[in-house]
Amino acid sequence: MRELLLLLSIALPSQAWFYGRARPDAWTQGGVWPLPQYLEYGKVNRTVSPQKMFVNAGSLEDCDIVQDNVRGYVERWFFPFPVAADPSASPYHLSIRVGGECPSGAPQQGMNESYSLKVSSEKAVLEAPEVWGAIRGLETFSQLIFFDEQENTYKLRTVLIDDWPRFSVRGIMIDTGRHYLSVKTIKRQLDIMAANKLNVLHWHVVDSESFPYESMRFPHLSKKGAYSPRHVYTRAMVEDIIEYARMRAIRVMPEFDTPGHTSSWNVQTGLLTECFDENGDNTHLPNLIDPSNEDNFKFLAEFFEEVVSTFPEKFLHLGGDEISDYLEECWKRNKKIHKFMRQEGLVNTTQLEDYYFKKLENVTSGLHEKRDRVFWQEVFDLNKPSESSIIHLWKGNSFAELAENIRQATMKGHRVIVSSCWYLNYVKYGTDWKTYASGTAETNSRYYYCDPHDFLGTREQKRLVLGGIAAMWGEMIDNTNIEAVLWPRASAVAERLWSRRESTSDADAAWPRLHELRCRMVSRGYRFAPTNWPDYCPFEFSD
Amino acid sequence: MRELLLLLSIALPSQAWFYGRARPDAWTQGGVWPLPQYLEYGKVNRTVSPQKMFVNAGSLEDCDIVQDNVRGYVERWFFPFPVAADPSASPYHLSIRVGGECPSGAPQQGMNESYSLKVSSEKAVLEAPEVWGAIRGLETFSQLIFFDEQENTYKLRTVLIDDWPRFSVRGIMIDTGRHYLSVKTIKRQLDIMAANKLNVLHWHVVDSESFPYESMRFPHLSKKGAYSPRHVYTRAMVEDIIEYARMRAIRVMPEFDTPGHTSSWNVQTGLLTECFDENGDNTHLPNLIDPSNEDNFKFLAEFFEEVVSTFPEKFLHLGGDEISDYLEECWKRNKKIHKFMRQEGLVNTTQLEDYYFKKLENVTSGLHEKRDRVFWQEVFDLNKPSESSIIHLWKGNSFAELAENIRQATMKGHRVIVSSCWYLNYVKYGTDWKTYASGTAETNSRYYYCDPHDFLGTREQKRLVLGGIAAMWGEMIDNTNIEAVLWPRASAVAERLWSRRESTSDADAAWPRLHELRCRMVSRGYRFAPTNWPDYCPFEFSD
Repeated sequence: MRELLLLLSIALPSQAWFYGRARPDAWTQGGVWPLPQYLEYGKVNRTVSPQKMFVNAGSLEDCDIVQDNVRGYVERWFFPFPVAADPSASPYHLSIRVGGECPSGAPQQGMNESYSLKVSSEKAVLEAPEVWGAIRGLETFSQLIFFDEQENTYKLRTVLIDDWPRFSVRGIMIDTGRHYLSVKTIKRQLDIMAANKLNVLHWHVVDSESFPYESMRFPHLSKKGAYSPRHVYTRAMVEDIIEYARMRAIRVMPEFDTPGHTSSWNVQTGLLTECFDENGDNTHLPNLIDPSNEDNFKFLAEFFEEVVSTFPEKFLHLGGDEISDYLEECWKRNKKIHKFMRQEGLVNTTQLEDYYFKKLENVTSGLHEKRDRVFWQEVFDLNKPSESSIIHLWKGNSFAELAENIRQATMKGHRVIVSSCWYLNYVKYGTDWKTYASGTAETNSRYYYCDPHDFLGTREQKRLVLGGIAAMWGEMIDNTNIEAVLWPRASAVAERLWSRRESTSDADAAWPRLHELRCRMVSRGYRFAPTNWPDYCPFEFSD
Repeated sequence: MRELLLLLSIALPSQAWFYGRARPDAWTQGGVWPLPQYLEYGKVNRTVSPQKMFVNAGSLEDCDIVQDNVRGYVERWFFPFPVAADPSASPYHLSIRVGGECPSGAPQQGMNESYSLKVSSEKAVLEAPEVWGAIRGLETFSQLIFFDEQENTYKLRTVLIDDWPRFSVRGIMIDTGRHYLSVKTIKRQLDIMAANKLNVLHWHVVDSESFPYESMRFPHLSKKGAYSPRHVYTRAMVEDIIEYARMRAIRVMPEFDTPGHTSSWNVQTGLLTECFDENGDNTHLPNLIDPSNEDNFKFLAEFFEEVVSTFPEKFLHLGGDEISDYLEECWKRNKKIHKFMRQEGLVNTTQLEDYYFKKLENVTSGLHEKRDRVFWQEVFDLNKPSESSIIHLWKGNSFAELAENIRQATMKGHRVIVSSCWYLNYVKYGTDWKTYASGTAETNSRYYYCDPHDFLGTREQKRLVLGGIAAMWGEMIDNTNIEAVLWPRASAVAERLWSRRESTSDADAAWPRLHELRCRMVSRGYRFAPTNWPDYCPFEFSD
C-alpha cells in the first residue's frame, strides 16, 4: 500500500486547488475502483498499444463467458480513448488462468469473485478460482491502462494485486413499475455495474402503477396492467437481460412485491380488496391483496412457479413493504375482511398480515425450485418471517437507527441486505456521495461512509450481513436520466461493499481514483456525471 | 379558449388517479407549449401522413432560415414517432406567408416573433411579419400533430391561433467555465430551446476554473487557462453556435465576467491582484482584476473589441457578481491596492468597485460596435451603473425580496432580466417546477409560478422588465447530465415568459400539455426527464 499512497499523493496536493474545492484535474493514472484488497504498484509504467495487446484464456478459451469478456475488453474497454496507436510499443500478453469449469448456469450467492493479478512490464497473469473472479480481474486490468497526456499514448501500470469482495451482495435496485426502462438502458447499467464490480441487479419489476412483466400463464396481467403493449418485458427480453448479466457475473434478483403495491395486478379477479374512503365509498383504487380469498394463494403459487422458472437466481424478493399506507382504506374499512378476521380469530390487521405472509411462505416453499426468500424490513419489524428469510433493510433516518435495525435482525438470526442509506433516487445539489446534505435525513447522503458492519454485534451477526443494494426508485427516473443520476454516486456504494474499510476511510483521498473511473467510463460512452464540483476529463462525454 | 378548456378536461379528470398523483397517461393531443396567446381549437382532427405533407414558403422559399427550418420540420420534427404512414391520408398543404425580408443578420432585441396560424382540415396558413415569427409558428404547427394510439396514425388538430411572446427576453444560461460543454451538446439545447420558443442563450463562457474561449488577439488566455487544448471554443466553433442559434431565432448573449471570477485569466501579466491569507501570505489563487493597473483597461478594451466582433448580439453581459467573496483576500489585504486607493482618494473598496465599473463602462462605450451592457445585480445594489445598463437579478430568497429587487431597479430606470427564481442547477427530489421544495429558499422551486411582473410598480416600470433567464450553473453539470436536468424544468420558465398569465395560472392543469411536450421531445430524441411522478410516453426515450 505504500507505493499506492506515495503515488496518490502526487495527484492529490494537501492544499485544495481553488477556494476549498478539489483540483479539476485530480485524477489518478491506473487507479483501480473499487480499491483492491491488496495492491502494490511497481515502479514503471509500460506503453501499450491496441494493436499489440494479446489475451490468452488457456483452458477456458472456449467458455462463452470468457470469450464474451475478452472480446469486449480487447475491442472496447481496454482502449476507450481516441488515442493513436504507438507503433513503437512491443507486443504485450495477458494470460488468464481459471481453476474451475466454464459455468453453465447463472452466478449465485457463494460464487467466488476473487482473483490475483501480476502485471509486469513483460507480461501479465490473471489467476482466479472461478470464471466470475476472472471477469472481475479483467476489469481491474483494464483500469491499469490509462491515457498519458504528455506522450499521447496508452500506458499500463505494473502492479501486484490480490483481491476479493468484502460483502457477497453488492447491488443496484431498478424500478420498472413507475417508469418503464428499456432493455438497452438496463443492459447499459449492467455494463457499468460490472465495471464497478457490482454483482446483483435487484429488479423491482412491477408496482402499483404498472405491470410490465409479461406472464405466460397470466398474460392478462400485463395486457391490462402495463402502460401500453410497448411497455412490457416478454419472457425473451427477461432472458436476454439475465444472460447479459450472467456474462458480467451479475445475478438478477426479481422482486414481485405483495400484498401492497399491487394496484396494477387488479385485472386478476378477486385478487385485491376494495378500498374505502372516510364516507364508506369505495373511491380508492385497490392496492392490497385479499388474504380472505383462498384462490389468491393458488394464483400466487402458479405465478411464482413461472417466476422461478424464468429467473434462475436463488434469492426471490417477495416485497412486503408499506402495507400500512393502504391498511385503513383497504382492510380496516372493508367488511369482507372484518368477517374473515372474525372467522379466523385474527384480532387485528397485524395478525392478518402474519396470516398472509405465512401463507405466502407456504406457497413459495412449495415451489418446484427452491428459493431463499427476501422481505422488505416491515415483515421483520411487524410480522414473523421464518429465520431463513433475508431481511432487506430500508428504514432508519440516522446511522444509529440503521445500526439498531441491523443489530435486531441479525440477532434473530436473519441474513440482511442494507439499502437504508443508499436511496440514490433522492437527488440533491452537491456532493452527496461524500458530504452531508443538510435538511435531509442523516442516512440520505454520505453514501461512501455508510458501513453495514457499523453496529454492535457478534462475529456471527456480522457474518449475517450479506451486503447492500443502492436503490433507484422510479418515480422520477426513466431512460432519459437513470444513468447520470446513478453514476458515479452508486460507485461510492460499490467501493464501500467491495474494499477494505481501512483503506477506504477518506472520500476526499478516494476522489482522484473515482475521478479517473468517471473519465474512463465517460470515454467508454457512459454518462458519469460530475460529482465533485468543477472538473474535466481528458476526453469529455459525447452523445 | 372555451374549446381548449373543454378538451383539456377530458385528459385531466378532476380526481387524481392514484393516491394523489396525476394520471400517468394525462397528456393532451395536439396541445401547444408554451400556450399561445389566443387559441381556438376546431372540432375535427385530420389524419396526416409524412409522405403527403407539403410546405410552401412563398416568397421566402430561398431564405436560408426558412429553408433550414422547413427541412428540419418536414424531415424530422413534424413526424417524430415510429408510426407507419397512412396510405389513405390525402395531401396536406401548409403555406407560410412572411411579411418581411430574409434577415441577413442575427436576431436581436426587438425582433418580432408574432405569428398567426389557421389550420383547417383542408389546409393550413401560417402568417408572420418576420421570419422569426414564422419559426415560432412552425413549431406550433408541429405540436398540433400527434400520435393517435387507437388508429396508429398521425393526426393534426385544427385550430385558429394568434400568438406573440409576453416578454422579449426568454433565455437559458449555460456555464462553460466550470465544465466544458461540447458544441453538440450546446446545439441540442438550442434545438430544445426553439421547441420551447426560448430566444436567448446566455453564454457564461469563462469562469475562475477555466478559460475555454480561444481569443485570437490573446491566444495565451485559453492556451494556459483552458482545461486542455481539447477544452476550447475556437472562433469557428463560436460562429457555428451563433449561426445554429440564428437559424432557430435564438440570440447568443456572451458573458465575460469581471472583475471577479477571473482566476483562469491569470496568465495575462498584471491583470489580477495577489491575494493574501490571514497571515499576510499570498497563498490564495488570484481571482480579482487589479484596477490600479491602467494597462488592464487597455487589455479589456482590446479583448472586448474581439468579443463584439465575434458575437453579433447587441446585449453584452459584463458580469460583476460576487466581488465580495474575494474582496478581503485580494483587495483589502493588498498593499498595492491600498496605495492606489490613497492616490485616487477612494475611501473604501466600494468606491474602488465604482472606479472599476466606470472604467469598464468607458472601455465598452468606446468599442467599435455599440452594445447594451448587462450587469449582475450587485453592480446595481452596490455601485452606480449608467441608467442604460440592464440589471440581471439573481438574488432574493423569497418572492417578496425578488419583487422588491425588481421594483428598485426599474424605479431607477434600469431594464431588468430576472433569474433569481430560476436557478435550475439546484436539483432536488420531486416536482420542483410546480411544488415548493421544503428546506430550500422560497425562490428555489415553483418555477412555473414565478412572475417577473409580480411587483408594485408603474406601467413604465413593468415595461422595463425584459424577461427572464433560467440559469444552469456548471459546477455539477456537463455533457453527461445537462439535458435531463434542464428539461422539462426549463419548459416551465418558457411558458411563464411567453404565455398569458391568466391562461397559465395552474401548473396541475398545465401538466397534460407539458407531458405531451415531454413525450414529443423524447420521440424527437431529447432527454426530457420525468417531472410529475410515475408516467409514460407512447414511445420512450432510446439512446
